[in-house]
Amino acid sequence: MKPGAGRGYDTISFLSDYGHGDEFVGVVHSVIAAIAPQVRVVDVTHGIAPCNVRAGGLALARAAQYLLPGVVLAVVDPGVGTDRRPVAVEVGDGASVLVGPDNGLLAPVVALVGGAGRAVELADAGYRLEKPGELGSTFDGRDVFAPAAAHLCCGVPLGDLGPAVDVATLTPGMLPVSRRDGDVLVAEVLWVDRFGNCQLNVDPAEADEMAATGALLQVTVGEDLRTAERARAYADVPPGRVGLVTDSSGLVSLALPQRSAADELGLREGSEVRLAAAAAGDRRTGGPTAVTAVGLSPRPTGPQDLEGGRP
Amino acid sequence: MKPGAGRGYDTISFLSDYGHGDEFVGVVHSVIAAIAPQVRVVDVTHGIAPCNVRAGGLALARAAQYLLPGVVLAVVDPGVGTDRRPVAVEVGDGASVLVGPDNGLLAPVVALVGGAGRAVELADAGYRLEKPGELGSTFDGRDVFAPAAAHLCCGVPLGDLGPAVDVATLTPGMLPVSRRDGDVLVAEVLWVDRFGNCQLNVDPAEADEMAATGALLQVTVGEDLRTAERARAYADVPPGRVGLVTDSSGLVSLALPQRSAADELGLREGSEVRLAAAAAGDRRTGGPTAVTAVGLSPRPTGPQDLEGGRP
Amino acid sequence: MKPGAGRGYDTISFLSDYGHGDEFVGVVHSVIAAIAPQVRVVDVTHGIAPCNVRAGGLALARAAQYLLPGVVLAVVDPGVGTDRRPVAVEVGDGASVLVGPDNGLLAPVVALVGGAGRAVELADAGYRLEKPGELGSTFDGRDVFAPAAAHLCCGVPLGDLGPAVDVATLTPGMLPVSRRDGDVLVAEVLWVDRFGNCQLNVDPAEADEMAATGALLQVTVGEDLRTAERARAYADVPPGRVGLVTDSSGLVSLALPQRSAADELGLREGSEVRLAAAAAGDRRTGGPTAVTAVGLSPRPTGPQDLEGGRP
Repeated sequence: MKPGAGRGYDTISFLSDYGHGDEFVGVVHSVIAAIAPQVRVVDVTHGIAPCNVRAGGLALARAAQYLLPGVVLAVVDPGVGTDRRPVAVEVGDGASVLVGPDNGLLAPVVALVGGAGRAVELADAGYRLEKPGELGSTFDGRDVFAPAAAHLCCGVPLGDLGPAVDVATLTPGMLPVSRRDGDVLVAEVLWVDRFGNCQLNVDPAEADEMAATGALLQVTVGEDLRTAERARAYADVPPGRVGLVTDSSGLVSLALPQRSAADELGLREGSEVRLAAAAAGDRRTGGPTAVTAVGLSPRPTGPQDLEGGRP
Repeated sequence: MKPGAGRGYDTISFLSDYGHGDEFVGVVHSVIAAIAPQVRVVDVTHGIAPCNVRAGGLALARAAQYLLPGVVLAVVDPGVGTDRRPVAVEVGDGASVLVGPDNGLLAPVVALVGGAGRAVELADAGYRLEKPGELGSTFDGRDVFAPAAAHLCCGVPLGDLGPAVDVATLTPGMLPVSRRDGDVLVAEVLWVDRFGNCQLNVDPAEADEMAATGALLQVTVGEDLRTAERARAYADVPPGRVGLVTDSSGLVSLALPQRSAADELGLREGSEVRLAAAAAGDRRTGGPTAVTAVGLSPRPTGPQDLEGGRP
Repeated sequence: MKPGAGRGYDTISFLSDYGHGDEFVGVVHSVIAAIAPQVRVVDVTHGIAPCNVRAGGLALARAAQYLLPGVVLAVVDPGVGTDRRPVAVEVGDGASVLVGPDNGLLAPVVALVGGAGRAVELADAGYRLEKPGELGSTFDGRDVFAPAAAHLCCGVPLGDLGPAVDVATLTPGMLPVSRRDGDVLVAEVLWVDRFGNCQLNVDPAEADEMAATGALLQVTVGEDLRTAERARAYADVPPGRVGLVTDSSGLVSLALPQRSAADELGLREGSEVRLAAAAAGDRRTGGPTAVTAVGLSPRPTGPQDLEGGRP
């Protein structure tokens, strides 16, 4: 640890796709503690699906406003060992620094907090782990990112870690935006949580507007058609309905009480979901059998027509 | 954080059904650290099955006597966002405070430590997280429970968190009690651990008494009949037998050496298990084939007759 | 806690097969904090497969050089409650102490750091958790190992924990060594990580030597034959090839970009893998169909002949 003129930080918030089955997370904690023993490390999550950069970026963005100021260490890095750039990006006038691969992982949180200030490429070997030559370059979390995060905490100035990076060249994140198709809102599942709730890229106001005409909505997933309603709590979703709950991130989630909406509706991250106001009198409550019937019987009138083209 | 006349606490022991796949646990840690940076947070477990209040209550009770004095933050909360009460419950003359939903989750540990002292409903908005109006009420661990736990640590008096709750109105826990059916002890699986050991609601003395007549016992699961014996260690269970091991909580667990008794016997939490002394000479060692035979062959004499009624 | 003449330690690095689904890890943390509140506990991993002593020993060895000096608490203990010895083993002239069962778990790391110094059996009841008689002996992590680790941190001398153990009697670890079979290197999968990378007991120099003749190698798993090539990064493995990447431990891992080599090749820890230089012009890219063909078609010339005997 070199004493530095940097401001230093007290906390590293650490997110990765390392899981808890192997020793990756423990090794990173050990590396940090060896360089910066005084630092608090908060594990945001290490359960990001392997190599899923988008899921990691979204999780970081959801957590961002609750994280302590300081360093954010984020590692979902399918390109480890290639020439993708390891970077550190200052945000919030230096209140926090994001450390990770420049592959889009950091982009959502950078956008959320108002854009990047300065950025550098983590190229200075003096702030990487000294590594015997016989070890491969497959664990930059240990060798590059954790040391950089720890040194920043110790007061090493950002600029000492490597050459400046033009923030305009940082890899952007690609997040799907919901779109209108006539009266139908075509949305996408951003996140399926442990409880099977399916977060959509839908603003509560949009869902409220649709529900205004008759309180009920139709949710179409593939050929599965369900009646949904806005609900304040998971437990408030009535039997036979799918809930559209404003979740803790301020987006609309598809939910069922005490069971998994993802399992029941066959949804995964990235699945398309179509929302529309329910036709008067429409009370379909779904279930696989009912759904098959939708596909086989004469086409019902109403928004599901927009699916179009199926016999 | 308001300075308060409360005693304050050094430790929060945190249990939930949040899992480690999402950022829930990390966000709660961050919220606690922002309010009470000096507090140690011990993660008891976050692996409780989603919404399984009973399993959470049992895990907390098993851990209770080993936890540090202080605040216990417990969140298994299928009713989040409804009018179920968020509460803080003092136990042990204020040595500890339990914070969580009033849905029975806290009941086993409250009973174990001698009952509740004072309790309050966590209604004071000043000790909740300031939340923009557009966020839903689906994450009270973050918005209500963690802040309350952290403020208690900082010395906020219990009574400042909200109105007193009559402890007699706290939701009780419902735990199954084993019962006698003639010579048979009808028990239930309380817990299946990672190793597949199946904890029963059976006191070691009961099992010892049964085993006294001939050392061996019969275990019946559904139509599956096995010979069991009392063992001091998992590795001491002989081949072809099911072990009845006094476990680290002081209850009897069904166990097999280095493999899962739950998988082999088809047991889950809540499964019924029948225990009886083995008839002399009875040496059934089980396996699915032998088990089917029991159901099909002429009824053997002995305790398994108590199953009754099967051809 | 007795004050002692021991040197004391600041850190416990904790590895186990306890998983995160139950409260085991949380209870151990609580026990440590009650005895030695000042100690930092780093969770190396608790995801070792249940009772898999070899996997635990390998994970500890991989992590070893990155761990902080201090106490290493390692518990993968299928023999808990039997007469297998609980031990503490000094290494590095006392810079660290390994605490765990004497079942081979500690052997790889002991060998790696230059052998054991002194060792003791953790027999002194005064440094175990006081346990009511009605609790079973199925959780020595809580009752024996964690207290010993914590007391060592507090300065209890090693010799106070129990009688000396002749280090020559400590259970050795059995690690498979790759072997030559003509031109073929017969290796074994030591570890499958979360990403499906399969670490082999193969030194990069051996793979380089094989690849020197033509850059490509053949990998044979059962009857599945694939063309492999040395690659510096997972993402550098070209389509249709299996990568042989020097990994972060300095061994050769079979890898595929952004997907699981273990799943695609049907590999598990302990699986045999055969490596050979590829014959000129050999460009098999594998896939289950191609593989079946290998078994059925006339035997190709080249190293796969060494598999021998199949029609």
